[in-house]
Amino acid sequence: MKSIEVQRMIGHIAKLPGLGLRSARRIGLHLLKHKEKALDPLIHVLQEAASRVQSCPICYNLDTTAPCSICADVKRQNGQLCVVEDVVDLWALERAQVFQGHYHVLGGVLSAIQGVGPQQLSLNALAHRVAGADVQEVILALNTTLDSQTTSFYILDNLRAYGKPVSRLAYGLPLGGELDYMDEGTLVTAFKSRHPLD
Amino acid sequence: MKSIEVQRMIGHIAKLPGLGLRSARRIGLHLLKHKEKALDPLIHVLQEAASRVQSCPICYNLDTTAPCSICADVKRQNGQLCVVEDVVDLWALERAQVFQGHYHVLGGVLSAIQGVGPQQLSLNALAHRVAGADVQEVILALNTTLDSQTTSFYILDNLRAYGKPVSRLAYGLPLGGELDYMDEGTLVTAFKSRHPLD
Repeated sequence: MKSIEVQRMIGHIAKLPGLGLRSARRIGLHLLKHKEKALDPLIHVLQEAASRVQSCPICYNLDTTAPCSICADVKRQNGQLCVVEDVVDLWALERAQVFQGHYHVLGGVLSAIQGVGPQQLSLNALAHRVAGADVQEVILALNTTLDSQTTSFYILDNLRAYGKPVSRLAYGLPLGGELDYMDEGTLVTAFKSRHPLD
Repeated sequence: MKSIEVQRMIGHIAKLPGLGLRSARRIGLHLLKHKEKALDPLIHVLQEAASRVQSCPICYNLDTTAPCSICADVKRQNGQLCVVEDVVDLWALERAQVFQGHYHVLGGVLSAIQGVGPQQLSLNALAHRVAGADVQEVILALNTTLDSQTTSFYILDNLRAYGKPVSRLAYGLPLGGELDYMDEGTLVTAFKSRHPLD
């Protein structure tokens, strides 16, 4: 006996990544019970984001300016280009403050099962950037799943023609990880790539 | 390097029940990447709900009409009043199609730790309804946590003066549950309340 409006709202919330009908009901009810403190401000920030945030025409990052603040930052023009799958990965690297150059967001990875081919990713734009004089080095910072690794090799093949150094992030044990909880693939990789100690 | 708008949106999403910063980032990015298909429709349904859904002045259910469609349904005027903690519980009972009478939503339970006293709940309105001629029987359908049980006893005490039968839902093993996974309190209750078989 939920009204159409409530059902529709919960249905839309349930479709968000990681949520289901049960969590959507809880969230929907919370919003309806706290209209002034939760629902109205949420609508406001969503509207702000919807109207102002856009995809960067150079690197495909999301920002309110075009080009995005990272592409526009001349201090980050250090010749390094870091290729990531998605904007969340860019955010993660920025949080870690590990990289001072420019990014390129692919928008996904090649996947035969999900029908994602090279045309669905920003690979042509990447090749175009790497061909230019601004890029001296490419760092592939893709995930370590099978599809991501396949995509890394595909990119490596495609960029070979430009004769610029291409590297990928190291594979191994994550910091704070316990051997007992690691999968065998990680253990094998960590073993093979072991570092000599001084 | 997220724009203020994106940060603000993710911050608001992260405050929703059951979500954290990590899930909020995923949801926020999903919405920004699918503006037409996800963000704009979500804003629309939230606005619809914000402007049209209200609390029923009789039973505190949420609906677009006042009184709500359940209170307004004369076919449900069977003398039974089912008391629930929250609108989600009303929804759960409606999904189970187990009850054909009217509801009363308390808006929570008494809690010394969370500082919820009788005044924060719709207890006066409940007493008022039970005193009236329309209610012949009260069914307490509260949760089975300690605070909820305390609240059930408090309500029972308060309604005694009206001399109308008050019952609570049965406690025991949930259907499809395995003994091995049940807590001891449930097992003790189920044992004590065992039913003779014909």
